[in-house]
Amino acid sequence: MSETPTTKLETWVEVPKNSDFSIYNLPFGIFKNKRLSPRIGIAIGVKIVDLSVLEEAGFFSDMFLPEGIFQKETLNDFIALGKPKTRKVRERVQELLLADNEELRDHSIRGKVMVNRKEAEMLMPVKVGDYTDFYSSIEHATNVGKMFRDPENALLPNWRHIPVGYHGRASSIIPSGTPIFRPKGQFKDPNMELPQFGPSRRLDFELEMAFITGKETKMGDSISTKDAEEYIFGFVLFNDWSARDIQAWEYVPLGPFLGKSFASSISPWVVTTEALEPFKVKGPEQTPEVLDYLKFEGEGNYDLNLEVYIAPDDKGPSKVCQSNFKFMYWSVAQQLAHHTVNGCNINVGDMMASGTISGATEDSYGSMLELAWKGTKPIKLETGEERKFIEDGDTVIMKGFAEKDEMRVGFGEVSSKVLPTK
Amino acid sequence: MSETPTTKLETWVEVPKNSDFSIYNLPFGIFKNKRLSPRIGIAIGVKIVDLSVLEEAGFFSDMFLPEGIFQKETLNDFIALGKPKTRKVRERVQELLLADNEELRDHSIRGKVMVNRKEAEMLMPVKVGDYTDFYSSIEHATNVGKMFRDPENALLPNWRHIPVGYHGRASSIIPSGTPIFRPKGQFKDPNMELPQFGPSRRLDFELEMAFITGKETKMGDSISTKDAEEYIFGFVLFNDWSARDIQAWEYVPLGPFLGKSFASSISPWVVTTEALEPFKVKGPEQTPEVLDYLKFEGEGNYDLNLEVYIAPDDKGPSKVCQSNFKFMYWSVAQQLAHHTVNGCNINVGDMMASGTISGATEDSYGSMLELAWKGTKPIKLETGEERKFIEDGDTVIMKGFAEKDEMRVGFGEVSSKVLPTK
Repeated sequence: MSETPTTKLETWVEVPKNSDFSIYNLPFGIFKNKRLSPRIGIAIGVKIVDLSVLEEAGFFSDMFLPEGIFQKETLNDFIALGKPKTRKVRERVQELLLADNEELRDHSIRGKVMVNRKEAEMLMPVKVGDYTDFYSSIEHATNVGKMFRDPENALLPNWRHIPVGYHGRASSIIPSGTPIFRPKGQFKDPNMELPQFGPSRRLDFELEMAFITGKETKMGDSISTKDAEEYIFGFVLFNDWSARDIQAWEYVPLGPFLGKSFASSISPWVVTTEALEPFKVKGPEQTPEVLDYLKFEGEGNYDLNLEVYIAPDDKGPSKVCQSNFKFMYWSVAQQLAHHTVNGCNINVGDMMASGTISGATEDSYGSMLELAWKGTKPIKLETGEERKFIEDGDTVIMKGFAEKDEMRVGFGEVSSKVLPTK
Repeated sequence: MSETPTTKLETWVEVPKNSDFSIYNLPFGIFKNKRLSPRIGIAIGVKIVDLSVLEEAGFFSDMFLPEGIFQKETLNDFIALGKPKTRKVRERVQELLLADNEELRDHSIRGKVMVNRKEAEMLMPVKVGDYTDFYSSIEHATNVGKMFRDPENALLPNWRHIPVGYHGRASSIIPSGTPIFRPKGQFKDPNMELPQFGPSRRLDFELEMAFITGKETKMGDSISTKDAEEYIFGFVLFNDWSARDIQAWEYVPLGPFLGKSFASSISPWVVTTEALEPFKVKGPEQTPEVLDYLKFEGEGNYDLNLEVYIAPDDKGPSKVCQSNFKFMYWSVAQQLAHHTVNGCNINVGDMMASGTISGATEDSYGSMLELAWKGTKPIKLETGEERKFIEDGDTVIMKGFAEKDEMRVGFGEVSSKVLPTK
């Protein structure tokens, strides 16, 4: 399963040291530039491989791909070809990029295939059908419980039995680089007699990972934890923007709504499960034992470093959080098995986010709510400024990468600036 | 606004007495039959007007519609033309169907345009982008509060201030006639020490109406209650299937998830806001006064009779509920204004359901949970059988129609049979 490839791979493409987009990664995304309409590319170092040009030139001719499959505005149709096909495309590109492979390296078309990443604009990688957000970090759920409920019984009774989740808003998922507007809404602080209306005063990020489904199911069918991975195409970084004051007033009894639905930001490159395979680790032990349909043997988590930075207007970024995807109590396989156990059907391009990924230490908390502990412990930025929540003009940047031996597989970043209420 | 048209309209099409699909209605839907691929039609009496044939024959030639706009598998592209255009198409069809209009009546193409409704299969009318469910009936919210929380303080503190809502699952919304499977899941009754897994023992319907959005907004923008109607294309009947035992165990703190996401059924004909205009009425008074962005003058509710029937396997239906859409505390304009006040963007084809529509009397409750009061008062069917919840083999049928003077505008029905767990 998660053994390191025995061979060290080298490529003829310029890959800066510590690049997230190594020859081991090869994530898929949708890009365009001044000259090119939206299309599917694979990132490698400072370049993007334009798959549509490769295809036209016959480099995938033995795979019988539908014509124009890479000349698309989303990855959905490509992903829908199924893992055996998409895997093969990625493997073929990896082969073409190997240092000693001459096919593309010495081909006259090379200049047209290899696009500068710097000059490309990254778009939403998929058209998201349904978006689900889980709540799978025990540290995060415990912190929230301590702050808002009983510190002695911080976890709710169902938490260790089900990967708690809820449906989110798909329309407002946006790619890195798109600014967001501070949301307006109703809130009622304990000291207010009546609810008030205005811009949120407690805008927050949530550090999450999300997976994109790659295979549909029919209504009434379920996915087992064992088969779950075959239904996952890949992952992105996910910033689940949250307005804490709006959320607090609205969420009982039907859950978060306008406190979340104004925006969620994702990183634009979809890192495949294949690229993440070497970084799999066992998840935390689950006590009490879970019900049969949630049982999972083996390595279901990913050892993936996660970081959050805040950059106030025109100033440099300060790291405010250092977490890891491996902290998750519930694995993605368990999330997907739970999501479908009632027969809920999944489509290609659904997005399922992890919930805030917090660790055990105070510097690993995945939201301002926790980092500044409900506003009681403001955090200091390198600029000298303090933050309890996110202010207008702040850019929030999330990064994620896995490292092992010589291999580095990363996500680049999801970066979004907060603009004042529109 | 809601005045009765001064002229009585008559048509040359056979319209049975009490047909929901009168000349005043003319709802849009997607149909196919043995001969015809999916396309857009308008229902009238026993017939469907095949709009694609009308268009090809030049009956809309002065409207400059995109070619093939009616030869589609969903209404989305048509709806996206905007209300001025879709309104004009409906008005043109109404004109063509008038008793004394010869254009279509005496045209050789008439036989090809008028399809038998009986022989048509109705498909999903729209591709649903995002689906939202509100909770806007004060009687329903009060009943639930009495059963599960404090009978003295049945309504939660936020209920009269915000049209409470939550995101639902769009992928499992299905058209009338599609059977559903009893969902499996986790539940933990108060008497159980640990949660158990199995088919839901408390399967329920929820009688709702849903509107379909017809115009998009950009992120950061909001819709005022005054403008809301311009963003609504039309309505359908909505059965928000619910598994009460699964829901009860999962919903704290993030809201309903698997207790709902296994299926929601809708009626296939979309009745336009124009057709419903004569049936508008004022909603209940709202106390305390709502915040400014939720204020609404005039008639925001619809006087629409709603009925629910249960038909056990191979047996006749028994009416179990008689309610009315006019009972809603929060109007659709308020729902849409609230949904977008935080800048959440709306797309064409979003679906927003009302929440269970209960009235003040016991026979007007819109769910089995309320009708049989948490299983304590089983209801008797005409077959002699009793029901606390919905059993395998039961078909649940919802009907809705408005009547005034000579006019009847109805939805047909949403009917779905419950099959045993798959």
